[in-house]
Amino acid sequence: MVTKSDIRAAADRIAGHVVRTPVLMSAGLWDRPVALKLEQLQVTGSFKPRGAFNTLLSCKVPDAGVVAASGGNHGAAVAHAARALGHRARIFVPEIAGPSKIALIERSGAELTVVPGEYADAAQMAARLAEEQGALQIHAYDAPATIAGQGTVMAEWEAQGLTADTVLIAVGGGGLIAGALAWLQTARKVVAVEPGTCNTLGRALTAGEPVDVPVSGVAANALGARRIGQACFDLARAQDIAVVTVTDPAIIEAQRALWQSHRLLVEPAGACALAALLSGAYRPEPGESVAVLVCGGNIAPDPAFD
Amino acid sequence: MVTKSDIRAAADRIAGHVVRTPVLMSAGLWDRPVALKLEQLQVTGSFKPRGAFNTLLSCKVPDAGVVAASGGNHGAAVAHAARALGHRARIFVPEIAGPSKIALIERSGAELTVVPGEYADAAQMAARLAEEQGALQIHAYDAPATIAGQGTVMAEWEAQGLTADTVLIAVGGGGLIAGALAWLQTARKVVAVEPGTCNTLGRALTAGEPVDVPVSGVAANALGARRIGQACFDLARAQDIAVVTVTDPAIIEAQRALWQSHRLLVEPAGACALAALLSGAYRPEPGESVAVLVCGGNIAPDPAFD
Repeated sequence: MVTKSDIRAAADRIAGHVVRTPVLMSAGLWDRPVALKLEQLQVTGSFKPRGAFNTLLSCKVPDAGVVAASGGNHGAAVAHAARALGHRARIFVPEIAGPSKIALIERSGAELTVVPGEYADAAQMAARLAEEQGALQIHAYDAPATIAGQGTVMAEWEAQGLTADTVLIAVGGGGLIAGALAWLQTARKVVAVEPGTCNTLGRALTAGEPVDVPVSGVAANALGARRIGQACFDLARAQDIAVVTVTDPAIIEAQRALWQSHRLLVEPAGACALAALLSGAYRPEPGESVAVLVCGGNIAPDPAFD
Repeated sequence: MVTKSDIRAAADRIAGHVVRTPVLMSAGLWDRPVALKLEQLQVTGSFKPRGAFNTLLSCKVPDAGVVAASGGNHGAAVAHAARALGHRARIFVPEIAGPSKIALIERSGAELTVVPGEYADAAQMAARLAEEQGALQIHAYDAPATIAGQGTVMAEWEAQGLTADTVLIAVGGGGLIAGALAWLQTARKVVAVEPGTCNTLGRALTAGEPVDVPVSGVAANALGARRIGQACFDLARAQDIAVVTVTDPAIIEAQRALWQSHRLLVEPAGACALAALLSGAYRPEPGESVAVLVCGGNIAPDPAFD
């Protein structure tokens, strides 16, 4: 179980390798002010380098280097962290990662394999390679060092003066929300937001255990793990958190709102948590103050500049 | 002359109408860390609402409402502020404002006239209408209430812990940098950055007075005033500030760098100050710490969401 002290240690470890992402108090997005943690402004465009750096800096990396499977964002983060620390990196992504995430990984100099299918298929190939070659596999969400790294987002946000009663966080495999739950424990209400088309946590809580879920939809290349991580499941069940689902149109509408109100361009997963608020999938009580974690900005296609 | 006390009063006046824009300390953009003030995340996508709200809240607005001419950003800000405060607004923009700035103004409900030519042509029509109908004209850059409003950006940034020796700021008509100079006086070095194709301040300082300059280039719909404001000119000359110019390709490269490093999508004017650093147009001394004001995000075309 990841503790607050693990998260503090992770924060010390990764300082200097990641940026302290800013917070914006938005007045215009919703009928009450909403605090936005702009974690899509992180190096490589998502929160993922926190876990990647924490993993690489807290264990001995073998000469065979590191291996990771990813919908795209974790792969970009591992590739970046490996290069920064001088390790070989091999990354497996599914086709649905899409051209801009693939280009981001390629720019890092990592060896990249694009795998037919979805995240789970890439994960199988990465695990096999790691075992055959003795490379270090950095799991995208279900490993203590990954979760402790992701937990630094919430520790940082509280240090920046977070006051909200409730924090909305998008869930894919659950590494980010697991880190948040490990840090917050029950200090604030946490709402898990999933696309209806990748509802791994909601389905697992209903079933009483992690179960395979078909994944699709606009956020599938970031939130499309086939099964919730065990660590996330255990924390979510123990803390009895709320889970809501959002539709693809609600996600797209939240992307548009972030652009129109604040010139923030985010990928679908990055707008997922906000979509719960704007669509009414989550309805706060009167007086309940709300914060939204914006988690990724690697939209496809990349904007063109010319 | 705008004073620090005018700027403090403006900050009190506009609080609650504008957002406190966040600061990002970027590690990867340049070979030393660079503080970025993300003013493009402001309401309506630029710093302009600060001056617009300060003007409307510090004078009696006639029944005929307000009139403004603008390359686009000031018009969007005046339109937004007028609606928020219940005034009629008529906005004049040149064709080069482009479809996304025009759509932004139209969404605000203001009456919009698109004028052939450049900013100066729209300014003439706005001045004539204001005089004929007794409406309040809000000048885009050369009026004390506008400058005091824009000065709140720098006051806010210092309150957020700005430590840089040097601040780089893009110049069009000069309202933003005039506000910054009025606030900072000589407390930090200010570098004015202009596109070589709209170098109103540099040419004025060489000539010893504001002179007309032909305007063109990628940032012309934001930085394309034909002549520097007198107030800005006086402050820049009195404080003997450095002025550098950047090319259009350098501006586009800075836009690309902000996207690739931090998923910040900005308009050309918003990347202009950074372009001076990345292109070497401004070369800091060893040990000189640098901050960059990112001033606008109203890129064209608008990103599509679907």
